[in-house]
Amino acid sequence: MSLLKSWVTSANDPESGFPLNNLPYGVFSTGGAARCGVAIGDMILDVAGLGPAGIFDAGNWNAFMALGPKAWAAFRAELFDVLKEGAAVRPLVAQAEATMHMPFAVAEYTDFYAGRQHAENMGEILRGTKGLPANWLHIPIGYNGRASSVVVSGTDIHRPLGQLGAGRFGPCEKLDIELEMGAVVGAGSRIGQPVSVAEADEMIFGFVLLNDWSARDIQGWEYQPLGPFQGKAFATSISPWIVTKAALEDFRKPTPPRDVPLLPYLSEEQSGLYDIELSVHMGSEKLSCTNATRLYYSAAQQLAHHSIGGCPMRVGDLLGSGTISGPAPEEFGSLMELSWNGEKPFSLASGETRSFIEDGDTLTLKGHAQGDGFRIGFGDCTGTILPAIHTPDWAK
Amino acid sequence: MSLLKSWVTSANDPESGFPLNNLPYGVFSTGGAARCGVAIGDMILDVAGLGPAGIFDAGNWNAFMALGPKAWAAFRAELFDVLKEGAAVRPLVAQAEATMHMPFAVAEYTDFYAGRQHAENMGEILRGTKGLPANWLHIPIGYNGRASSVVVSGTDIHRPLGQLGAGRFGPCEKLDIELEMGAVVGAGSRIGQPVSVAEADEMIFGFVLLNDWSARDIQGWEYQPLGPFQGKAFATSISPWIVTKAALEDFRKPTPPRDVPLLPYLSEEQSGLYDIELSVHMGSEKLSCTNATRLYYSAAQQLAHHSIGGCPMRVGDLLGSGTISGPAPEEFGSLMELSWNGEKPFSLASGETRSFIEDGDTLTLKGHAQGDGFRIGFGDCTGTILPAIHTPDWAK
Repeated sequence: MSLLKSWVTSANDPESGFPLNNLPYGVFSTGGAARCGVAIGDMILDVAGLGPAGIFDAGNWNAFMALGPKAWAAFRAELFDVLKEGAAVRPLVAQAEATMHMPFAVAEYTDFYAGRQHAENMGEILRGTKGLPANWLHIPIGYNGRASSVVVSGTDIHRPLGQLGAGRFGPCEKLDIELEMGAVVGAGSRIGQPVSVAEADEMIFGFVLLNDWSARDIQGWEYQPLGPFQGKAFATSISPWIVTKAALEDFRKPTPPRDVPLLPYLSEEQSGLYDIELSVHMGSEKLSCTNATRLYYSAAQQLAHHSIGGCPMRVGDLLGSGTISGPAPEEFGSLMELSWNGEKPFSLASGETRSFIEDGDTLTLKGHAQGDGFRIGFGDCTGTILPAIHTPDWAK
Repeated sequence: MSLLKSWVTSANDPESGFPLNNLPYGVFSTGGAARCGVAIGDMILDVAGLGPAGIFDAGNWNAFMALGPKAWAAFRAELFDVLKEGAAVRPLVAQAEATMHMPFAVAEYTDFYAGRQHAENMGEILRGTKGLPANWLHIPIGYNGRASSVVVSGTDIHRPLGQLGAGRFGPCEKLDIELEMGAVVGAGSRIGQPVSVAEADEMIFGFVLLNDWSARDIQGWEYQPLGPFQGKAFATSISPWIVTKAALEDFRKPTPPRDVPLLPYLSEEQSGLYDIELSVHMGSEKLSCTNATRLYYSAAQQLAHHSIGGCPMRVGDLLGSGTISGPAPEEFGSLMELSWNGEKPFSLASGETRSFIEDGDTLTLKGHAQGDGFRIGFGDCTGTILPAIHTPDWAK
């Protein structure tokens, strides 16, 4: 596929990220109520009046998602006709003048652990064992996160307070990021009824970039035996536009060869990964870059595993992929790996060094799929870390 | 306090569980739509027409909870006037003719681990270590569960399929219960703003009995390093009536003496546990009985810890206490403990033995606070285990 032209001229720039080929879904405001919109070039099309009547009234994409894959395809075709070259010009909103909001209400948030290099690095750093956990090659390991703490890109985040060890309380001293993809579940399933990988793929509506901010010291002290909790519960940031599966169809790639055969319920016929170039930035400086094809399990495999015991999935569930790291340090997707838990602080162009995030640092994830003369962009996933709140008197 | 008399004569029976002193909140139907109601004796009062206009229109208690503690107190006083001895007789619905539904929409579900004896037993059974995890006396350990799989008492549950070990797939072979209390969060908090234990206590609306059904083999294979996932995601059952904090006020008890001092943010001035007698039944046979005062951390302490890093709490969050076990085997709150992971199968009156749940078994939790001539009852939390579903072709 090549660039599809729009009457919105900025969309035809090969580096736009939001050409007619993309058409990602977000929620924006310009002073008044939050409205559903579609990114096109450097503009936004307000979708009020398009699609089924009243479907966007709630100011998010959940009701639309619940209509299912046929309605998703029909609406994409409608948008295509409205925005293609030669169609009637309509009023648009400049992205530069809009405030972005959460594109959907997160029903539940699950975070997986499908980055093999990351799992190996974390094992070596935290547990001194170079190998993977015994179950890792068999199970798309995941844990339930906290949906209420998912925020849209651009939201400032206070450094969390918490327990740093036995009797130690205070602001997190090892604040980190995790470079992930987020899959948005657009169709639910019934309790007691597992879904296959193929069905799971159909249920996925689209993808966002996801930064699973992590308090490594809080996590390290709390996580045995029941897993991460407050170390992951203060914030998870997502990019503002849901890039639909339809826009990414040409960029599908297979999962890597299996070290051990997967159980039949996890076998995948259709390629479930996507060729998406990803990068991590501190301020204006690029710290690392990798690709979403580094994942060992696809979102569809994760979703199938999620339901295998009968757990019902909901419209608006968000699945984090797990931190994406490649084999070389330039491809690491967390500061924990980049600084090797502070043993090897890295240098910035300013001459400063970093092991973990300092107050005032802005961390940004970027991602796009590179087509022939066009890009499918996600929009930045960014956040600035503010100092910890003043410790309340009752916590002193 | 003694029995407060109602014109509903069955409520004045000392063993009713639903006297005027209680007034717990549920959702019921009798063929048509689900409606909010209050249990009184063996009857239900439909609350349509009471309270603020339209507050029960959604068919659950979430909107009412969101009104906050002052409104909770005002409505309880209104119900009191309507149901007290001498008040005008109104039409009621017999509990025996009603179907009960989820009393509230669960926003997010968190399960804690505050039963000390249970934690010690599980450590000994699973990890061969008699002691508690290093963090246990410092942190009310918890993990995020799956809200979508919380079901009301009486819901049948299929034995889950899942991974039982490397390359092993099939129906769970070690299906278990966990005897817990569930705290219902009725007031939310803002992101980045921790709440104190005293504030957390104010935010709790009421309590239910909670059975955290557990697939021990699936859990054992999956839980390192990110905690329980599919082993806990197929179903969690709750009793149908939310017993308000107001009804339990006279039954408050302090948490046990601390082995090590807690950090200030977890210190509790008001007694946060409740004297609630609890029992586990298989069919009509009692397997064990204990008391909610066996917990080491209160729900208010758990909620304060939940928010300490800034995680926002939502109206409708459900917090499981953790499995409640006393020191004697007759007080154990799971079959894993009662049969010591199958090493010591226990006998039933029928002559059968059990290590874990067999298909067709019905497990029931019961609980009440014993007052002077009255009881604050919860209603049974019961569920029958059905055989696993036929394994889909794609999973063979």
